Amino acid sequence: MSITLYDLAGADPDLRFSPYCWRTRMALAHKGLPVETVPWRFTDKPAIAFSGQGRVPVIRDGDTVVSDSWSIAEYLEERYPAPTLFGGAMGRAHARFINAWADSVLLGGIARLIVRDILDVIDPKDRDYFRSSREARFGMTLEAVQQDREQRVATLPETLTPVRLALRGQPWLGGAAASYADFIVFGTLMWPRCCSRFSLLAADDPLLEWQERMLDLYGGLGRSARRA
Amino acid sequence: MSITLYDLAGADPDLRFSPYCWRTRMALAHKGLPVETVPWRFTDKPAIAFSGQGRVPVIRDGDTVVSDSWSIAEYLEERYPAPTLFGGAMGRAHARFINAWADSVLLGGIARLIVRDILDVIDPKDRDYFRSSREARFGMTLEAVQQDREQRVATLPETLTPVRLALRGQPWLGGAAASYADFIVFGTLMWPRCCSRFSLLAADDPLLEWQERMLDLYGGLGRSARRA
Repeated sequence: MSITLYDLAGADPDLRFSPYCWRTRMALAHKGLPVETVPWRFTDKPAIAFSGQGRVPVIRDGDTVVSDSWSIAEYLEERYPAPTLFGGAMGRAHARFINAWADSVLLGGIARLIVRDILDVIDPKDRDYFRSSREARFGMTLEAVQQDREQRVATLPETLTPVRLALRGQPWLGGAAASYADFIVFGTLMWPRCCSRFSLLAADDPLLEWQERMLDLYGGLGRSARRA
Repeated sequence: MSITLYDLAGADPDLRFSPYCWRTRMALAHKGLPVETVPWRFTDKPAIAFSGQGRVPVIRDGDTVVSDSWSIAEYLEERYPAPTLFGGAMGRAHARFINAWADSVLLGGIARLIVRDILDVIDPKDRDYFRSSREARFGMTLEAVQQDREQRVATLPETLTPVRLALRGQPWLGGAAASYADFIVFGTLMWPRCCSRFSLLAADDPLLEWQERMLDLYGGLGRSARRA
């Protein structure tokens, strides 16, 4: 039986752009698990009320319901051990740091460059919610958050320095093979890739070579994703 | 036979403050290996010429010489597997990201707050070298780097956000037990602790609870360290 993934979608139901849902999507693909995705919009809270909270990703695996991308990764590793996402308890603990870094540093850095673009791709019924919740978070209009991004985009490659340095010593963040650490960073980068046409990395950034390999994994799951 | 560690020292030979040497010191203690440390100063290049380079940490283990804190950690894990520093190949790969983050983000953030203080504790023979090499790196005088630190210190807790978030979910960065990930961050924080009296974290920072536990490890190795 397939696992059901409630996956954030745009006005186009095939446009899937959540950085958290992408982490889950890659983890499911890594495990080779059949998955059925359900397009979900920010304001479809009743559709996932069964999960006891109001955000995606949410998965339903038989009778088991899990929300939150990190908790889902832990659940999948426990329930379907091979191939591994973490390489053991210590690998999982170290990945939690990378997850925290992506959530607290990388995600915010990207948001300040593309958050206004998201408004153009989401479902019309989500737009008021998205604008008001994000403007409250940033304390300014979405247009103000994103302004001067051509100048500010130069800071993003610097934010990604730890990723670039780690990949100098190994082909994947997971070492010899991709791990959930790769899915965390790659999933976060799928967010701007899918919902914006603004380029975040220079054409000669060494990270692009890794990103290209990530896009090819699991039958080109990332590469075939719909883009705005 | 003891392992010899060439360890950066101040004018006071018992003052050991290198963030990289502290990572190695903790890794050696974690492995329960007897160690003999040799105080070394920045300008003692000939004393470690046998290592083929000019920086510490350097260890000599019988006929084996290893330099660079990351390479030393990999060597120790290979040569003395238990207790583990990494928990396997993937745990090591993930720790490499944390090492890269500490080197590229945390270390620089701290340096801008305490680099002038270091001049007061190092050996007089090192002072010209230290001032000229660091002023070239920063493109300004050490005094200029450190000025207004009372205002800027507020950014350091933000830099440490990923550590704080990771420790919300687990007692150590290594999970249920301390790992090399803990030694990376703790070792980096031993640098300002040992060579400066400037406080980097507020008294109510939740990181202090973890730091206190780290200071107690291995018979209070960190806690008993000489401070400026």
